[in-house]
Amino acid sequence: MVKEGIGLEDIIKGIRQADGEWIEKARQRTDQLVMPTRALGRLHEISERLCGIYRTLKPSMGRRAILVMAGDHGVVDQGVSAYPQVITGEMVRAFLRGGAGINVLARLVNADVWVVDMGIIPELDPASMEGGDRLLIHKVAKGTSNFAKGPAMTRQEAEKAILAGFQLASDLFHKGVEILGTGDMGIGNTTPSAAIGTVLTGRDLEEMVGRGTGVDDDGLSRKREAIRQGIEVNQPDSKDGVDVLEKIGGFEIGGIAGCVLAGAYHSRPVLIDGFISTAGALVAHAICPDAVDYVFAGHCSEEPGHKIMLDYLGLDPILDLGMRLGEGTGGALAMGIMEGAVRIFQEMLTFEEAGVSNKES
Amino acid sequence: MVKEGIGLEDIIKGIRQADGEWIEKARQRTDQLVMPTRALGRLHEISERLCGIYRTLKPSMGRRAILVMAGDHGVVDQGVSAYPQVITGEMVRAFLRGGAGINVLARLVNADVWVVDMGIIPELDPASMEGGDRLLIHKVAKGTSNFAKGPAMTRQEAEKAILAGFQLASDLFHKGVEILGTGDMGIGNTTPSAAIGTVLTGRDLEEMVGRGTGVDDDGLSRKREAIRQGIEVNQPDSKDGVDVLEKIGGFEIGGIAGCVLAGAYHSRPVLIDGFISTAGALVAHAICPDAVDYVFAGHCSEEPGHKIMLDYLGLDPILDLGMRLGEGTGGALAMGIMEGAVRIFQEMLTFEEAGVSNKES
Repeated sequence: MVKEGIGLEDIIKGIRQADGEWIEKARQRTDQLVMPTRALGRLHEISERLCGIYRTLKPSMGRRAILVMAGDHGVVDQGVSAYPQVITGEMVRAFLRGGAGINVLARLVNADVWVVDMGIIPELDPASMEGGDRLLIHKVAKGTSNFAKGPAMTRQEAEKAILAGFQLASDLFHKGVEILGTGDMGIGNTTPSAAIGTVLTGRDLEEMVGRGTGVDDDGLSRKREAIRQGIEVNQPDSKDGVDVLEKIGGFEIGGIAGCVLAGAYHSRPVLIDGFISTAGALVAHAICPDAVDYVFAGHCSEEPGHKIMLDYLGLDPILDLGMRLGEGTGGALAMGIMEGAVRIFQEMLTFEEAGVSNKES
Repeated sequence: MVKEGIGLEDIIKGIRQADGEWIEKARQRTDQLVMPTRALGRLHEISERLCGIYRTLKPSMGRRAILVMAGDHGVVDQGVSAYPQVITGEMVRAFLRGGAGINVLARLVNADVWVVDMGIIPELDPASMEGGDRLLIHKVAKGTSNFAKGPAMTRQEAEKAILAGFQLASDLFHKGVEILGTGDMGIGNTTPSAAIGTVLTGRDLEEMVGRGTGVDDDGLSRKREAIRQGIEVNQPDSKDGVDVLEKIGGFEIGGIAGCVLAGAYHSRPVLIDGFISTAGALVAHAICPDAVDYVFAGHCSEEPGHKIMLDYLGLDPILDLGMRLGEGTGGALAMGIMEGAVRIFQEMLTFEEAGVSNKES
């Protein structure tokens, strides 16, 4: 069990790289399977990375969970979103009722969905809500402050968000979850994500900012301007992941960063979703670069900056289906592909077992 | 039931385009689902095409089958493959034992696998083999002739192969199969597939020919030369799909073409796999262009000509995972994604049902 009160320094000290020797052993097994050399491409890379993460030749993805982190964002005051802020809480209710995109795709891959109030504006009472047993309250505050005018949150709040995500994910791993998907909900949250991407990858703001849920041209200009102001006013330190989260981030993004750190700390894979989850992974990477060894990228989002972020982290997305919903949907769909990779590794016969001649015969 | 003795002309007459009105009705439903406009990208396109194919707003993919078509190829005499020809029959045995790649991935997506001897060299006796009840014998001949020296088969054999595939697929559809995947096995079969691709897309042979299961540079030269000779000696008529199959094709490729025609004839979706299956779809397209309305491309293969073929047919592959095994593996993995698309369409709540404000609110 992770001790209560564990701090970021302890977490960083507890993270080591995925195990190259197990990856090499796994590659040797792949070479014996009854097919032309590595003919299933990325499926082999996925199963071998899982062997390096679990330090075994029998990786399992039987128990799956998705944490959908929700938060509200003060920066919506700048007119950066096509949808009203009230939708964040409304969608949390939809998740609990089981009727949103993430619920449908999580059922498809047999993953449990947990919804976390990391800092939405409304006060929800799990006891009185349909599906409320799936809602976990870890509210850091009622939405962030408008980062175009000052820091989104305090440093203490940023740490609290990350540690909450770390503890939630750690609890799931202790309960036997073998792969964790991250998801997000928060009207306006492509804005802090693009801001984080700009600061942590060092790329131009113009490349990083897209239309999110679908702002028009004016909204896009306001979004760019809000991010430009936010970076200028707050001067986030790109060497300090917590500082970046504090100045221009969001509570749910911090929670996702905590999930990524927990995967690395406990040697378990974390499957990130799209633009917002990847902003969380960027924060985790800034805190502890080795954490990325434990991360799989579920898909490449339509949001233009996503590919840049993934390239920066060295992650190759599993799917590319023009999706841009968030919630964890891209990760959920990718769980099915990862399960395929594991089954190929475990269940496919070797040339010898199948009685099939090899190339050299 | 399809009448015995149905000919290609009758099949062509029985094929109509997918239904644009049902696709439009499906788009209207998608617009009501609780997410930003079309935020799940290709998933919507998949579910809406299925509505147009089935002519319903309740498409179902509950019953799934994969037909793995096997054949041998005389052109291996030209030294075009990295593996010995005996492997075709050995792999058929491995499929029946359930230990090959396609078996593993078909189990993942709950698809039944049937293996068809369309024209392999060995005589297999289903009654005396492990898993023999999954083997269907429709042997056109014991392997094709070497097309570098003359036609691969007779015109009668080409028609027989296509009609066998048509009947097999029709039987499965009549038994309630709702989506059919095509697969292939045949040492040397990237060579006729590349030849078909060259003739039917009109592109350069150099763009179309890859290393298949992994030939070295000399093998690649021999493969190119064999295809060049085959086209020169046989002068296949690109306006006549049956002629192309006869001159430079393969029995399993003809069987796959028949599956594609059957999907279109019975208004059922056919999920093609990689390079060889797509060569079969090209033959079907040359026979009846509208048939492609019923085809989904499971993945983009590593074989360089595959993308060119798919573009020619106007098909956008669902997955791109660097796979190049064939057998139907790419289609099987993609079935999981298509199931996700169907479930989103059926199970996701509308804005109204979920009580969530829409953009205009």
